[in-house]
Amino acid sequence: MADAVLHPVGYVESTLNDPGEAPRQGDEGAPDCDLVLDPAYAAAVDGLTAGAQVIVLTWLDRAARDVLAVHPRGDVTRPATGVFATRSPHRPNPIGLHVVTLLSIEGTRLRVRDLEALNGTPVLDIKPVLGSVDQR
Amino acid sequence: MADAVLHPVGYVESTLNDPGEAPRQGDEGAPDCDLVLDPAYAAAVDGLTAGAQVIVLTWLDRAARDVLAVHPRGDVTRPATGVFATRSPHRPNPIGLHVVTLLSIEGTRLRVRDLEALNGTPVLDIKPVLGSVDQR
Repeated sequence: MADAVLHPVGYVESTLNDPGEAPRQGDEGAPDCDLVLDPAYAAAVDGLTAGAQVIVLTWLDRAARDVLAVHPRGDVTRPATGVFATRSPHRPNPIGLHVVTLLSIEGTRLRVRDLEALNGTPVLDIKPVLGSVDQR
Repeated sequence: MADAVLHPVGYVESTLNDPGEAPRQGDEGAPDCDLVLDPAYAAAVDGLTAGAQVIVLTWLDRAARDVLAVHPRGDVTRPATGVFATRSPHRPNPIGLHVVTLLSIEGTRLRVRDLEALNGTPVLDIKPVLGSVDQR
């Protein structure tokens, strides 16, 4: 299989800078933050509306890619578990998946709630939540 | 932002070969199929159990990356919409997101239900569904 190359479409602008201060999930106290997209992608944003829930895919550029098992939530009293059975950022392809609420859209700057990604994290994709598909 | 390189962890083995015959979503008639992972990732699978719902991320290697707007579901009577507001496979980083049911696990071969990806599609990641995070 050939490798594939990702081209980030923007980055996260957040007050979260230290992995130690980031919540483990976005609904555990993440501050509101911005997705700052490259204006070249303005046409791709058309149709998104404030208030909607969307899925944001990020590239967790500070994660380790050679980790195959972790203790869930860093709790060493829990048995080591394969990373595909956890949401650890450490995994062969460290793609972050975040369900967030769009608060506002100004051009290609999108303010969102419940995103636990660190400042500067590359944004790969935005998708609408499809209730029938994602929540069956 | 530097580009990032994906290393597929396996591929989809499916009877779906023609994009024209693939359903638009996995719950619209996709056949059961297999995720055939590289045995090097056996430790990453440990902890997954048959019956669970998981999120599969794929690399939609037959999608176009230079499309920024589409008619939803290919219906030209619907207005063109930015790809970030649709689930079109055509998008700057064509990462497929599929919620599927794990039917069985034999080593690093995982049989799944409701996956609409074409035969040979690279698999990037598997994540557990977290109800509190993914379905809020």
